[in-house]
Amino acid sequence: MLEQLKKEVWEANLALPKHGLVTFTWGNVSGIDREQGLVVIKPSGVAYEDLKAEQLVVLNLQGDIVEGDLRPSSDTPTHLALYRAFPQIGGIVHTHSSWATSWAQAGRAIPALGTTQGDYFYGTVPCTRAMTSEEIAGEYELETGNVIIETFKDISPTDIPGVLVNQHAPFTWGKNAHDAVHNAVVLEEVAKMAYRSLILNPELTSMDQALLDKHFLRKHGANAYYGQTKKEEAHK
Amino acid sequence: MLEQLKKEVWEANLALPKHGLVTFTWGNVSGIDREQGLVVIKPSGVAYEDLKAEQLVVLNLQGDIVEGDLRPSSDTPTHLALYRAFPQIGGIVHTHSSWATSWAQAGRAIPALGTTQGDYFYGTVPCTRAMTSEEIAGEYELETGNVIIETFKDISPTDIPGVLVNQHAPFTWGKNAHDAVHNAVVLEEVAKMAYRSLILNPELTSMDQALLDKHFLRKHGANAYYGQTKKEEAHK
Amino acid sequence: MLEQLKKEVWEANLALPKHGLVTFTWGNVSGIDREQGLVVIKPSGVAYEDLKAEQLVVLNLQGDIVEGDLRPSSDTPTHLALYRAFPQIGGIVHTHSSWATSWAQAGRAIPALGTTQGDYFYGTVPCTRAMTSEEIAGEYELETGNVIIETFKDISPTDIPGVLVNQHAPFTWGKNAHDAVHNAVVLEEVAKMAYRSLILNPELTSMDQALLDKHFLRKHGANAYYGQTKKEEAHK
Amino acid sequence: MLEQLKKEVWEANLALPKHGLVTFTWGNVSGIDREQGLVVIKPSGVAYEDLKAEQLVVLNLQGDIVEGDLRPSSDTPTHLALYRAFPQIGGIVHTHSSWATSWAQAGRAIPALGTTQGDYFYGTVPCTRAMTSEEIAGEYELETGNVIIETFKDISPTDIPGVLVNQHAPFTWGKNAHDAVHNAVVLEEVAKMAYRSLILNPELTSMDQALLDKHFLRKHGANAYYGQTKKEEAHK
Repeated sequence: MLEQLKKEVWEANLALPKHGLVTFTWGNVSGIDREQGLVVIKPSGVAYEDLKAEQLVVLNLQGDIVEGDLRPSSDTPTHLALYRAFPQIGGIVHTHSSWATSWAQAGRAIPALGTTQGDYFYGTVPCTRAMTSEEIAGEYELETGNVIIETFKDISPTDIPGVLVNQHAPFTWGKNAHDAVHNAVVLEEVAKMAYRSLILNPELTSMDQALLDKHFLRKHGANAYYGQTKKEEAHK
Repeated sequence: MLEQLKKEVWEANLALPKHGLVTFTWGNVSGIDREQGLVVIKPSGVAYEDLKAEQLVVLNLQGDIVEGDLRPSSDTPTHLALYRAFPQIGGIVHTHSSWATSWAQAGRAIPALGTTQGDYFYGTVPCTRAMTSEEIAGEYELETGNVIIETFKDISPTDIPGVLVNQHAPFTWGKNAHDAVHNAVVLEEVAKMAYRSLILNPELTSMDQALLDKHFLRKHGANAYYGQTKKEEAHK
Repeated sequence: MLEQLKKEVWEANLALPKHGLVTFTWGNVSGIDREQGLVVIKPSGVAYEDLKAEQLVVLNLQGDIVEGDLRPSSDTPTHLALYRAFPQIGGIVHTHSSWATSWAQAGRAIPALGTTQGDYFYGTVPCTRAMTSEEIAGEYELETGNVIIETFKDISPTDIPGVLVNQHAPFTWGKNAHDAVHNAVVLEEVAKMAYRSLILNPELTSMDQALLDKHFLRKHGANAYYGQTKKEEAHK
Repeated sequence: MLEQLKKEVWEANLALPKHGLVTFTWGNVSGIDREQGLVVIKPSGVAYEDLKAEQLVVLNLQGDIVEGDLRPSSDTPTHLALYRAFPQIGGIVHTHSSWATSWAQAGRAIPALGTTQGDYFYGTVPCTRAMTSEEIAGEYELETGNVIIETFKDISPTDIPGVLVNQHAPFTWGKNAHDAVHNAVVLEEVAKMAYRSLILNPELTSMDQALLDKHFLRKHGANAYYGQTKKEEAHK
């Protein structure tokens, strides 16, 4: 079942090592079929070079396994919580990519300091609050999703397609699995550049709002004028 | 038409990912035929691995498309403004290369701290002022060109073949597309080294003027004595 | 003799350059057969690309060469001291990997700042005290082992599978040679991220204990629930 | 003539891009036949991928071209000055490798902070004083050699096989061209690690002298006990 979605999610998982976002198996991608309400996700602990599309696990949004012999990624409850809370999104990525994770460990949000970030994120990439001992001792992976959702209480997940989980690492999302990987690559790149820009100029807070508006809105929404056919990967 | 120039500009575009200067499609190269007054530029949003020489777009200096089925790079008005203002240049590159972009985001010019920069840039690589809300809301890409031109009011674009656009990213140029890419690589390298040198010695301002003169002038101008035949790529 | 162990240790040695942990021959891996009390280790000064499994040297725990025509790694006395003191471990790696070595040179322990470290190290990766002139002038490589053992006086080598030797470089270990290499890769990655996190937030000391408990214990010990079959390399 | 030496120097030149030490043609290697008093060096401005062994230029120590159709590297007078002043050395490398050049631009010597440096450099890697306007305006490349020689007034070039030229970049040397490249790789690595160690611990000055003695002397001189046959590349 869901052969096409499995293929997409499988390719998106393989894109993680290709883009240098993962060490060993430290990452996973999922995608959702919104009509059927079914999520396809990487099995836990399988090396990317060994991963086959048919090994991907299919679950419903309540977490029941619908197809698959292997245990799904241990982060599955986080993914499912995000799919339930953010109906706009079609794919989710979790990695421990080194620049974004360095910010997450520092407990710092990544301010929008330039147009590279503004082309994809409509402002600061937030960092969640630290989780409580109760959340950690309880349904930890579910609570990880909940603390992300809490962080997006007043933020649109379409405007800001990613987050840093405090003392942990980033999650990104997008309209499908491929797009979520794309945003994971962008997040890593802007995390790296923001770090260096802040060292060069510790006074920086955020880029000009007008410039941010211009860049985000020329690529997203009704008046976008980038690329040939508004393909998400088109930039310049 | 302009088959040779298209080939050159196409190769120069492919050189961007080869030199690690671009993520996804975040960059573009153009070249100009000064006799005909025609510019060849990358189409918008086409991935480098899919790009074919015949897809390049030909425009005149007023921005009318003379040949090509695809929409030209959204940065085209910036390129055209530079070609109109700087008659000495034959090729232009725009990237979001990470070190130079980190300086651009910081709003800081890159001081000449050593002979590597002095071999190609006759002093500081300037950073433009922030653009006004009016400029951003107006013909943004054209105004980006204008703010660069304003920055070079008292600087020769032959002496300093590149610039950082504030909160955005670098542009470089050269006597042709290949040379502009060459300068983009140099800019990224000197951006990286200046960052580290300043951390090692925050008191640094600029290298000795005599040393800068020596290095720039032994490679450029009438008394150059580098390489075998004064090929631009010859260094040592 | 010990053909299977030699093959494992040979593969683990070749994994060092593959993971970017070594320059030239700056590293070595050993493994032990606990039943026979025999250690297999890289010969000294042989380049990885030339290394053959049959060139590995076999020694007993007292350092007598049991098989092999080549001189064993000069670090052999350190390895043997660790095998004698830490009966739980089956493989040891020494490298001068650049991030971990930078911390070792700084004489600083690497605090656990996030779940990446918490998944493998149950807290801070310690740095040994500086060795005394007597230790250095005496049986230096043996004393290197002794100062590591002293550092682990109150730490379980299973909880913290690695150490920084002051002004020198890291050692890691694991249940076999492959696992020790895995931990060397993790150590390098967490050394890099902790450095950046501390620059982003100099106030950081250590991650929440509850989060550390959660991550370490869900991968190690009786209640682990990661991966398909509790394979050590399984993470997510 | 000197076919064997040309082959060695040619291979050593090709090793520079292989080790990531050069951008474009920013580097050169030479070697000397001490019996004949002849130096073989890279021609100026030839790309490494196009370089052929027979293109190398042969000069005597006074700088007269003995063989070769191409102009020798513009840094040739520096190489010759070093060969004349340091009779122990057989090969010289000049690069603009990014970490070492960052220190050179900062005008800072690289302190010996750990055993990686101690295995190859018997202490601090010095940085020359800034050159005077007269030296720069005069025989610049020769004076570059002279300021290096002045820096080594009280230092043995065998103990410290490299130097940073102020506001410029590193030179390294060794008993032959291959060995000089080896030391260039080491210098880049220790420049990188010292930078990071100093950020982690700004109080650092130098490693313990006893540890430095131990590491340098166990690899160099009469009592060395590293590797199989005291091959220079043998480390562990």
